[in-house]
Amino acid sequence: MAPSALQSLIAANTGFARAYGSDETSARAADLIRQTLDADAEVRFLFSGTAANAIGLSMLARPYEAVLAHHAAHICTDETGAPGFFGQGVGLIGLPGYSGKVDVAALHAALEEPVVGHRQPAAALSLTQATEYGAVYSEEELRHLIEPAKGAGLGVHMDGARLANAVAAGFDPKNIARLGVDVLSFGGAKAGAHCVEALVIFDKGLTRRIDNRLKQAGQTASKGRLLAAPLLGLLESGDWLSGAAHANLMAQRLADGIEARTSFVLAHPVESNAVFVRMPDEAHQALNAAGWACYQFDDGSVRFVCSWATEEAAVDALIDAVASLN
Amino acid sequence: MAPSALQSLIAANTGFARAYGSDETSARAADLIRQTLDADAEVRFLFSGTAANAIGLSMLARPYEAVLAHHAAHICTDETGAPGFFGQGVGLIGLPGYSGKVDVAALHAALEEPVVGHRQPAAALSLTQATEYGAVYSEEELRHLIEPAKGAGLGVHMDGARLANAVAAGFDPKNIARLGVDVLSFGGAKAGAHCVEALVIFDKGLTRRIDNRLKQAGQTASKGRLLAAPLLGLLESGDWLSGAAHANLMAQRLADGIEARTSFVLAHPVESNAVFVRMPDEAHQALNAAGWACYQFDDGSVRFVCSWATEEAAVDALIDAVASLN
Amino acid sequence: MAPSALQSLIAANTGFARAYGSDETSARAADLIRQTLDADAEVRFLFSGTAANAIGLSMLARPYEAVLAHHAAHICTDETGAPGFFGQGVGLIGLPGYSGKVDVAALHAALEEPVVGHRQPAAALSLTQATEYGAVYSEEELRHLIEPAKGAGLGVHMDGARLANAVAAGFDPKNIARLGVDVLSFGGAKAGAHCVEALVIFDKGLTRRIDNRLKQAGQTASKGRLLAAPLLGLLESGDWLSGAAHANLMAQRLADGIEARTSFVLAHPVESNAVFVRMPDEAHQALNAAGWACYQFDDGSVRFVCSWATEEAAVDALIDAVASLN
Amino acid sequence: MAPSALQSLIAANTGFARAYGSDETSARAADLIRQTLDADAEVRFLFSGTAANAIGLSMLARPYEAVLAHHAAHICTDETGAPGFFGQGVGLIGLPGYSGKVDVAALHAALEEPVVGHRQPAAALSLTQATEYGAVYSEEELRHLIEPAKGAGLGVHMDGARLANAVAAGFDPKNIARLGVDVLSFGGAKAGAHCVEALVIFDKGLTRRIDNRLKQAGQTASKGRLLAAPLLGLLESGDWLSGAAHANLMAQRLADGIEARTSFVLAHPVESNAVFVRMPDEAHQALNAAGWACYQFDDGSVRFVCSWATEEAAVDALIDAVASLN
Repeated sequence: MAPSALQSLIAANTGFARAYGSDETSARAADLIRQTLDADAEVRFLFSGTAANAIGLSMLARPYEAVLAHHAAHICTDETGAPGFFGQGVGLIGLPGYSGKVDVAALHAALEEPVVGHRQPAAALSLTQATEYGAVYSEEELRHLIEPAKGAGLGVHMDGARLANAVAAGFDPKNIARLGVDVLSFGGAKAGAHCVEALVIFDKGLTRRIDNRLKQAGQTASKGRLLAAPLLGLLESGDWLSGAAHANLMAQRLADGIEARTSFVLAHPVESNAVFVRMPDEAHQALNAAGWACYQFDDGSVRFVCSWATEEAAVDALIDAVASLN
Repeated sequence: MAPSALQSLIAANTGFARAYGSDETSARAADLIRQTLDADAEVRFLFSGTAANAIGLSMLARPYEAVLAHHAAHICTDETGAPGFFGQGVGLIGLPGYSGKVDVAALHAALEEPVVGHRQPAAALSLTQATEYGAVYSEEELRHLIEPAKGAGLGVHMDGARLANAVAAGFDPKNIARLGVDVLSFGGAKAGAHCVEALVIFDKGLTRRIDNRLKQAGQTASKGRLLAAPLLGLLESGDWLSGAAHANLMAQRLADGIEARTSFVLAHPVESNAVFVRMPDEAHQALNAAGWACYQFDDGSVRFVCSWATEEAAVDALIDAVASLN
Repeated sequence: MAPSALQSLIAANTGFARAYGSDETSARAADLIRQTLDADAEVRFLFSGTAANAIGLSMLARPYEAVLAHHAAHICTDETGAPGFFGQGVGLIGLPGYSGKVDVAALHAALEEPVVGHRQPAAALSLTQATEYGAVYSEEELRHLIEPAKGAGLGVHMDGARLANAVAAGFDPKNIARLGVDVLSFGGAKAGAHCVEALVIFDKGLTRRIDNRLKQAGQTASKGRLLAAPLLGLLESGDWLSGAAHANLMAQRLADGIEARTSFVLAHPVESNAVFVRMPDEAHQALNAAGWACYQFDDGSVRFVCSWATEEAAVDALIDAVASLN
Repeated sequence: MAPSALQSLIAANTGFARAYGSDETSARAADLIRQTLDADAEVRFLFSGTAANAIGLSMLARPYEAVLAHHAAHICTDETGAPGFFGQGVGLIGLPGYSGKVDVAALHAALEEPVVGHRQPAAALSLTQATEYGAVYSEEELRHLIEPAKGAGLGVHMDGARLANAVAAGFDPKNIARLGVDVLSFGGAKAGAHCVEALVIFDKGLTRRIDNRLKQAGQTASKGRLLAAPLLGLLESGDWLSGAAHANLMAQRLADGIEARTSFVLAHPVESNAVFVRMPDEAHQALNAAGWACYQFDDGSVRFVCSWATEEAAVDALIDAVASLN
């Protein structure tokens, strides 16, 4: 947790408050999220991004339907099939695209698939901002994906686990509602909060009995104020955004250093807080052995992620370490 | 329904019998299936292959696990995600291979994937005999797939919707139990019965409360004898096998005619009752327009399926029709 | 199967037809059902009443909601929890009432329950016509249940497994749509067909992707005409109704005989095809031992069910058998 | 959060640690729980008791089976049907008994129910310690419930949301494993932690792929140490137990005051931290209006719950308030 998150949690932990999310702390955090998004949305606080994504998708697609998403999206590759569990078998259809952005032509092709009884037809499009590969969609790019999807009757979900990083990179969060996103996972954990993500529902038609839905899914906090407080602290202090800006800056510093001082090649443009480097297995293993926890991604490149807590000195030391592998 | 199936149904429809599958007709049909397979298996009669496959798989893999199958298998492409519905989100991992047969190297690679918490690890292997592309696994080929799967702790399911065609092509059904298959969908509908598939469970550890499971899943027939009777008729008369042999022969005749008299190329070896032909869209459409219902498959080729009821004259007329497209 | 059902099946089993329900037989059967109900409804043919009920309910209530029904309704006591399986945990709330009819005051009390996050609020009402105890709702009685339910925003499902018996007892099936029922299971199996029930959807808003839903749920017949044909035969011949009238008459004969000639008391008014008799365990066991299959029901009484195939002589012999127990 | 919980959280929030529960904080908390229970169990930290109970039960009963529990148990009345959601329709069978304890004779009757295909047979028994009505099972009482359940092949789950209060009331937690409980929800939130419950699995046969299961269910904390830390603080400091002892003492003080100074009657023996009082609606409403949040329970009595944070002065003020209603 970032300091402002922790302070907010400590402050919320005094006196007594109403339980199950009907407290002042939760209300203020929800207000700040609505303000950030410039939208009159319903907001709930959940424990995990996996649950926020899966429950959000279950509002948009029924078991016999499917969700379109980039094939490297977190919902496709890193959530142990949670959309299918919460959505009772809902399908996932992976689409291609550079750096985790859904390819427009591929989306159109998917939307034009005829509906046949023996397949799960698409009912929703899920987009990740910033993407798994650290790319940031522009407003224009999102419009070219969301408009045809909505035109074809699909709902639109946005996985905003790294939304703060996208905003710090210049994306205006007010676009989300304007462009017609129906459900958003508004990231808290990666931004420096405790384990919390906000589920933001723009389409009020989807909110019917939302509290029963969340309770049944094990995503209701009896001590609601403790769940919301760290995210409130980040938003009130501005650290939600400034921490992400710092993370992005550190990623840029890392990328610059690798390009300047090593022979390794970047696998993706660095637009937010992650750097992907093409390197041989031995180099990757040597880094791990030296204590640099880094992870080989689906495309074979090695991922380095920066956060609000990443220090310049650590970045420079990592650059040295990578350079020594040349 | 084939004549022997219908006769058996008419015969079963006299007098009174015990309901819910505890009747004589069901018992005799189950006995004949056990005899065909030379195995002491539990046998139940279900209404659809989709349900038989999905329920069989739900015995082998839990929601947070996955099933390995050829990417063109019926469970992957033609059952509207039924395994995920009955299996509460169980995953499907598609493997490559020629003509619908799972590639051995691809299977080994899948079995060697490390188990990580954020993915659905494989818990079952599903094989289709004959395959979606009409290929027939040899005993040897099955052994090279089943042995490593069982060795890695996976259960093995066989989709035998076209098992009769595979047996007519020379596959010995006694291999199924011997090789270690745990659950088999024993095809009835395609062999000439009413809508019925037998779920055959070799691993008795999986049969606990099987009748409750089927009843809950809407797959219990109150009039059990009427469900089992057509399949019993096919098995008693030998038509289950001879009808499939006829279908295979017709497919061979069709393939020979196409090769001899047209410029079109077969997309897959013809080993059972289906013929896949590479042809341009216009040719495909012209055939459909001429009243020949045929279907473009996942690999782009056009599929022609023969059954126990396909007549030589119809095959010859189809060859003429295809030849006229040259 | 009744003779007209079997004849229709035999007739449908000639030549070739389109698969998966888009055939002429299915279309005609659906038309006759719409005509019987005097309503422009969507009709599909399913294999079992369990599935028809559970899938129908899954259209009306989400997993975090509940269905109100008589506590002795088939969906509550005899379907192994199928509504919860197909409905991913949807709740069932049992209501009291005489002879299987939901008590109006109990319904009002249930509708007035405040919605709280930690319970499953009611989203649907399920009514059975005729009831599990053989009672037949009048139009007026249904109106007093359906109106407040609809007024409170609930959907209404009707389990019509024994609808033919209710109609034979004087209930006008045109009331079903008029009164606002959203989904009906139109019984076929008990009326003399093979294993088939029609799912009738009056609210067109619920039919979106119904064919995908049914396919995923294992309730799509490849040989659709064979599924629909027996029910078509019953409807075309008039046997659907006349068979039920005969069954009701036989039940009345049995009830009269028991009242006139034995000391046993009827547990419920005899309004359709079932007779419930209060008798000591020894008497029940003696009947079973003498070959009269009868079943002790939830209320402790012993149930005798008549069908289109029940013969007068058998009824009289049963009366003799019961009388001999005095 | 209690002070020791908060301090532990603050301490855990320094430096870097491994994610997803493989950190030192989680390991130490798990060790202390094993030590408390004197058992070599698998321990995981989840966000909510609802999820811990539902996931625990899904390990013991399949969708076509049922769980026996007191009809007033939290899983039956307060979790929005979560067991059915996580368990894909698993059934709940409510049993009677005084003060939330399952009646032994009722359990035996349930265990003797014959298994029939159209019902969900019992596969697990769930017991709550302390119960919803504040009663505490003795070791002897538990033995008389657990032994026949295990003898009949059922698994046993214990909801220990208020286990600390039961232990403070004299129950030895080492009995839990000894008596054969298979899965325990070890309460943290009510004991003064953040939103966290430990899922304790004694039967190692149930732990296969537990991390995949939890991840898919949205119950895996990326920041695992932050989830476990507050509970670790409570256990290390002894506050887990002393806080519960204080809560029990306050409840006893409240009960004594009500008995001594008011005309209201206690509805249940006061054995842990809750007091149930029979009072007319007007009295209940007057208390609520005066700012005393209290809740009418299923049996009609009004519940007052004390916690580690309840102060003597507040109890005395409440006694005064109740006394003034006489």
